[in-house]
Amino acid sequence: MAKYVYLFREGNKNMKDLLGGKGANLAEMISIGLPVPQGFTVTTEACNDYYANQEVIREEIKTEIIQQLKELERITGKVLGNKENPLLVSVRSGARASMPGMMDTVLNLGLNDEVAEGFSKITNNKRFVYDSYRRFIQMFADVVKGYPKSSFERYLDDFKKKKGVSYDIELTEDDMIVLTSDFKKIYKDLAGVDFPSDPIEQLIDAITAVFRSWNNERAIYYRRMNDIPADWGTAVNVQEMVYGNRGENSGTGVAFTRNPATGENELYGEYLMNAQGEDVVAGIRTPEPIDKLKEEMPQVYQEFLQYAKVLENHYKDMQDMEFTIENGKLYMLQTRNGKRTATAAIKIAVSLVQEGMIRESEALLKVEPKQLDALLHPTFSEEALKNGKVLANGLAASPGAGAGKIYFNAQDVIAHHKNGEKTILVRLETSPEDIEGMNHAEGILTIRGGMTSHAAVVARGMGRCCVSGCGDLVLDEINKTITTREGIILHEGDEISLDGSTGKIYLGVLESVAPSISGDFKTFMDWADQTRRLKIRCNADTPKDATIAREFGAEGIGLVRTEHMFFESERIFNFRKMIVSESKEEREKMLEAILPYQRSDFEALFKVMAPYPVVIRYLDPPLHEFLPKERNEIEALAHSLNLTYEVLQKRIDALKEFNPMMGHRGCRLAVTYPEIAKMQTQAVIEAAIQVNQNGLNVVPEIMIPLTCDIKEYKYVKDIVVKTAEVIIQNSGVDLKYQVGTMIELPRATIIADEIAKDAEFFSFGSNDLTQMIYGFSRDDAGKFLEDYYKKGLFESDPFARIDEIGVGSMIKMAIEKGKSVRENLELGICGEHGGDPASIAFCNKIGLDYVSCSPFRVPVARLAAAQASIKANQSK
Amino acid sequence: MAKYVYLFREGNKNMKDLLGGKGANLAEMISIGLPVPQGFTVTTEACNDYYANQEVIREEIKTEIIQQLKELERITGKVLGNKENPLLVSVRSGARASMPGMMDTVLNLGLNDEVAEGFSKITNNKRFVYDSYRRFIQMFADVVKGYPKSSFERYLDDFKKKKGVSYDIELTEDDMIVLTSDFKKIYKDLAGVDFPSDPIEQLIDAITAVFRSWNNERAIYYRRMNDIPADWGTAVNVQEMVYGNRGENSGTGVAFTRNPATGENELYGEYLMNAQGEDVVAGIRTPEPIDKLKEEMPQVYQEFLQYAKVLENHYKDMQDMEFTIENGKLYMLQTRNGKRTATAAIKIAVSLVQEGMIRESEALLKVEPKQLDALLHPTFSEEALKNGKVLANGLAASPGAGAGKIYFNAQDVIAHHKNGEKTILVRLETSPEDIEGMNHAEGILTIRGGMTSHAAVVARGMGRCCVSGCGDLVLDEINKTITTREGIILHEGDEISLDGSTGKIYLGVLESVAPSISGDFKTFMDWADQTRRLKIRCNADTPKDATIAREFGAEGIGLVRTEHMFFESERIFNFRKMIVSESKEEREKMLEAILPYQRSDFEALFKVMAPYPVVIRYLDPPLHEFLPKERNEIEALAHSLNLTYEVLQKRIDALKEFNPMMGHRGCRLAVTYPEIAKMQTQAVIEAAIQVNQNGLNVVPEIMIPLTCDIKEYKYVKDIVVKTAEVIIQNSGVDLKYQVGTMIELPRATIIADEIAKDAEFFSFGSNDLTQMIYGFSRDDAGKFLEDYYKKGLFESDPFARIDEIGVGSMIKMAIEKGKSVRENLELGICGEHGGDPASIAFCNKIGLDYVSCSPFRVPVARLAAAQASIKANQSK
Repeated sequence: MAKYVYLFREGNKNMKDLLGGKGANLAEMISIGLPVPQGFTVTTEACNDYYANQEVIREEIKTEIIQQLKELERITGKVLGNKENPLLVSVRSGARASMPGMMDTVLNLGLNDEVAEGFSKITNNKRFVYDSYRRFIQMFADVVKGYPKSSFERYLDDFKKKKGVSYDIELTEDDMIVLTSDFKKIYKDLAGVDFPSDPIEQLIDAITAVFRSWNNERAIYYRRMNDIPADWGTAVNVQEMVYGNRGENSGTGVAFTRNPATGENELYGEYLMNAQGEDVVAGIRTPEPIDKLKEEMPQVYQEFLQYAKVLENHYKDMQDMEFTIENGKLYMLQTRNGKRTATAAIKIAVSLVQEGMIRESEALLKVEPKQLDALLHPTFSEEALKNGKVLANGLAASPGAGAGKIYFNAQDVIAHHKNGEKTILVRLETSPEDIEGMNHAEGILTIRGGMTSHAAVVARGMGRCCVSGCGDLVLDEINKTITTREGIILHEGDEISLDGSTGKIYLGVLESVAPSISGDFKTFMDWADQTRRLKIRCNADTPKDATIAREFGAEGIGLVRTEHMFFESERIFNFRKMIVSESKEEREKMLEAILPYQRSDFEALFKVMAPYPVVIRYLDPPLHEFLPKERNEIEALAHSLNLTYEVLQKRIDALKEFNPMMGHRGCRLAVTYPEIAKMQTQAVIEAAIQVNQNGLNVVPEIMIPLTCDIKEYKYVKDIVVKTAEVIIQNSGVDLKYQVGTMIELPRATIIADEIAKDAEFFSFGSNDLTQMIYGFSRDDAGKFLEDYYKKGLFESDPFARIDEIGVGSMIKMAIEKGKSVRENLELGICGEHGGDPASIAFCNKIGLDYVSCSPFRVPVARLAAAQASIKANQSK
Repeated sequence: MAKYVYLFREGNKNMKDLLGGKGANLAEMISIGLPVPQGFTVTTEACNDYYANQEVIREEIKTEIIQQLKELERITGKVLGNKENPLLVSVRSGARASMPGMMDTVLNLGLNDEVAEGFSKITNNKRFVYDSYRRFIQMFADVVKGYPKSSFERYLDDFKKKKGVSYDIELTEDDMIVLTSDFKKIYKDLAGVDFPSDPIEQLIDAITAVFRSWNNERAIYYRRMNDIPADWGTAVNVQEMVYGNRGENSGTGVAFTRNPATGENELYGEYLMNAQGEDVVAGIRTPEPIDKLKEEMPQVYQEFLQYAKVLENHYKDMQDMEFTIENGKLYMLQTRNGKRTATAAIKIAVSLVQEGMIRESEALLKVEPKQLDALLHPTFSEEALKNGKVLANGLAASPGAGAGKIYFNAQDVIAHHKNGEKTILVRLETSPEDIEGMNHAEGILTIRGGMTSHAAVVARGMGRCCVSGCGDLVLDEINKTITTREGIILHEGDEISLDGSTGKIYLGVLESVAPSISGDFKTFMDWADQTRRLKIRCNADTPKDATIAREFGAEGIGLVRTEHMFFESERIFNFRKMIVSESKEEREKMLEAILPYQRSDFEALFKVMAPYPVVIRYLDPPLHEFLPKERNEIEALAHSLNLTYEVLQKRIDALKEFNPMMGHRGCRLAVTYPEIAKMQTQAVIEAAIQVNQNGLNVVPEIMIPLTCDIKEYKYVKDIVVKTAEVIIQNSGVDLKYQVGTMIELPRATIIADEIAKDAEFFSFGSNDLTQMIYGFSRDDAGKFLEDYYKKGLFESDPFARIDEIGVGSMIKMAIEKGKSVRENLELGICGEHGGDPASIAFCNKIGLDYVSCSPFRVPVARLAAAQASIKANQSK
């Protein structure tokens, strides 16, 4: 029979899959002798079982829970629901991967009127007991039953006003008793029945609620953002309560063994006296820095410091710990590998190697590739910071530079982000409901909350810049304004800049500067390069992008979108004339005018990237995309062509398509207008000859896009080869070049063996492949895929993370077929997936030679490729 | 060493692949002792060799041609280029499949000034020799060199005017000598060099020209229309000339062993005295009916009649023969299975069985399934014919009824056809350049030309109605009018009706009536039904369509497009309200109003089709397709919804998509709006219960469209099953129903095994599969695929004929995967391919259970399925 419930003393840190991270680590801490309140864990398998059984906990599992509860009562010597000697417990979620704040927690469970009475006698602290009781009622109502917290909070606010106090802590024992009684009434109003007094009922309900919370919307969204599979499930930890709110000699806090923002090797954290853990995280009172504990409770501090060292050495990573002090005694409530900024992640990884604690390959696995993004985005320039108008100072909660228009709730941020605006989310304090908005904002500003508040933790996890606890500013949520101490009033849509590294807030959008790879970052990336098998190329259309990419470590260009070159104002006009030409002769004339531009573009790219390869994709988008839409532009074009507006409008209309994504594009353009492919070939070959004559050694790779048929491919390849050979022969130079194709249509994967006979390379266009294999377009899918995520049908965006089952299997087939006729066929990928770590791991596994991604993704890809190599070796 | 040239005496009728149809049949006729001028055939392999060698005939093959020419000279006792005893030859194309008029022919080859002089002496008929010579020059210039015929024809017309004559035949010997000399001058003007006098050069050039003509535009178009592969190539037949233009005792003609329009067992044909074959086919002079030959040359007629019998018995099929009479002696120049109308094809096939000549299975193979189309299209009603205003009488060249607007050239027909107009092509006479226009017209009317003129032959092949040789009408090509004897002038765009069975032309569009299956047609279709394995279902959305389909032999409905039911004016309003609803509640209210309509629609369909199965596809198109586009319509809808125009317009805009084909459609709608799927399930299940309670036995098959993922499919299936089970339970009736899906996205084929676990049937949506696998949409591909056909990259439209390599291989994979988990999985196809004979053969081969096609295609599909079964058995 399967075992669904483990006592903490039965577990260890290797049992994360079953016990979740929190449960496994609590068990581990107990096994190495740290002071941890006892408890038990209901496993992730029980959670999956719950979902497999119409969201019901089966009797068998309930029975096991009750059995282990009895065991816990035996260990603690306390009994749940017994008024003489009551056991009170917390019920917390704990998945395999940490999902801070995403799921639900219930504290102080086991209280009812009788127990409260008895517990008051034992503790001789009625105020504390009823404080705990009223918290429990509110939490239970919210978390277990789904009744709005606000019903209780509003009542509490009114109550405090009536009493003339500002903080909960100022309420008296009697106040707490009255509040408890009133909260029960509110509960009954909401529920229609009395607050449940049976502690077993309370417990089973709370465990059920945690299971249920695994599929709440914000958890689903978090999982999608972090690639966490839905079938992992969450475990539930039931643990004896210890109380930080028991009086002035009690408290609670969180701390990191190293600074999670910088990576410095120093204890870093904060605490609140006479409070429960939620008070620290929620940011309602601003907590004290951990250093102050050294003065207030030196012995407790020293003890904690020692535990921190033990834990870091034990886990060989920076730890994020929760602790509670009850009447002067220290309890450890959680340890886990701490979330950290990208800067900190790099510093810690490199330091741990230097300190001899781990090897380089282990260090490489300690940094999430996506985190590097944060290091690659601009910071504000020295100049801009010097001249910037500082509006206020807050806590430097998550480093980086963020600038944009301010909005006061997540919905507004999401909406304006969709419109292409850069936004800053301004909140009194953030809560898990804000997470999507935080993800879409350039930066987050909160008025309340400390360095470990929800906003700070989540922002660091996302690599988003954040300034928290900025009490300098007064927020008016109704009128959507913030007011500075100087009296400057900022309205919705006004622009500010946040410096997450200093906590300073500036007026307007400051100028920012590009980042560079140096110091620890460089050391770390060198390790990655020595480890990886996959080459990393970049998608770049301009010398500027190519230069950035090369600085970031790109080993060639995997995709030059030649059409991007046509959009510059001087060129677009000739290009448009070419498009609306009615004869081949007219078209060729305009192409002649365009040729010098293309040639010089290619020359510049070759110079930047030599001796690395450059893959040039021939004209791809449907031609109507280049045409003007506004009447005045059309008139200007008509005038220059000696046409009437009406005639030109007709020609433009004739080019319109119902489904441009499936229209006249890719090599279909070269089939209809071979002269375009000729011109592009001339530009590529002449540019390569030019730079090679100047001492470089460039081998251009000419890529024919959107191939669906072998005759089609050969037709276009013939144009390329015939044009190129003549130019090369006339030049007298011995230029090598390759011709290959983008594999981006399902049919191309099916006939890949035929194509490979005539193609020297394949580059998988996984964007289009994904579109065609799923049958939805990237532009349109956004709307309805939301429903798929919400309903748990899709876990990740197939345009972001490659679909291994569908798209992946077709790519694998193409590789096998291609290699079967050409052993040295060069294989790469140039869709969005080329910059996604999970997809890169897949590309490594199926044997691609390189991935190509946007310049800013190159370092991410280098690390992801290294991790893929390490993991592939581990699994051998 | 390969053999590239065969003497006629070396071949036989089974060598069609190598010698082409014409060559093989000439060889066969010689072997059975018929009087056929000797010659040799350059094989189709030589043609392919020519294309494989940059369009050059290799020396090796040239040498072989010369060798066989020598052999021919030995057999005939004549020598090419020898003025004493000259051999003159014809050079004709002859592919495996007959492609009448598509490729090129050169007659009288071997003439030059010297030979003409000598030949004149031998024949003692200078007029005849120089008539032949001038024809040769014009043909050689046109066919071999590509100089416009019109240069010569215009000169000839002027020459005749100058001489005051109407017909070539009225020109004198001297006229012919002058014309020959003038034609040589025209040739030199065009070519810049003299007309080639070396007969060997003439021969090789002519053979090359025939090879080249295999890839002219009209041949490519013809192949595409008739599914003839490009790599078959054409053979070239070089044959000793015999002369129908040698004088009044000479002539030439074509005849069929049975009437190609009706199938009656009677010799049917026409001839011209003192003419070459091209004169008959081109329709320049209107020829005499073959019966007249009985009187004019009774012996020749009897001899011919006997050969006709021999050939029909030998080939066991109706023969189309060409003959020439030279100085009273009969020569057979060609025999082939004759093209015939659908009516004739059926009659001949059934008659041949009744006459004991062939078996039923052989008869079934004698009718092209596509031909049946012609029998299934309306004829004019008796009433309409009685009251119709007859404008003129012509020859009943190809039966059927055609009505539409008149246009005077192929380009106009094509353009107006694209605009959705029904058109009639009116020409003085047609030529191969008109073929595409003929295909798009409802009917063809020519002023000149007989029953075997180009227009008549091609129209019969296409199953298009045609009235030819209508001398009653006067055509003014410049002003685009035709004038009747009564003086009625019809302009471009005026409407007429053609009755191809009587040759009558009517004013306006006459009412037409539906066809029925009876008599020989029924006998024939019964044979087909007894032979085929595949079931045939229809795509039908209305009881009317379903009734027609059932009368045509449909065995169920393979596709009900439920959305078509929403377009009726009463319903569309409620449906639109549903679409723009902002809440689930609003939507449900509108769906409730729609439910009764859907239910009664399904009831009606079940009643028509019971006990056969009915597959109901749930709502498929993107919702914006249902919304109004005109401002007044939008305002009306806004008004009824109590919304402003602006608000509604905004909601409508929000639904717009960039690529609707890849948008929010198919089961994606049911994921977002489960209430729609619920309503449709309710309608289906309640309708089925209703009709079954009335004694029928219907098993509805509910089809979920556009599945791409297993969770998605299960989600929608769950809605269906939950809704259905409740209704069935409440009804107390034991209703069976099936749930399955349309496999129309590549990803669905990849996960077909997963899907089949939960799907009782698959229906392949080959339209969408084709779109996604090729990555082009049906709506947009038309424009650029023309270039693919012209350049020989595509041979057939993948939306018409299934792409076996790409689409086919994914379907095969899906079948294998599906069957691997569900042995009795029901398999069908409901895309356009379900009505295409070649695709049906493929469906038969890969093991589908049924094909579903439009009602009018059902008989076509029944025959195609029977042929597929016969061929599958043959190849066993």
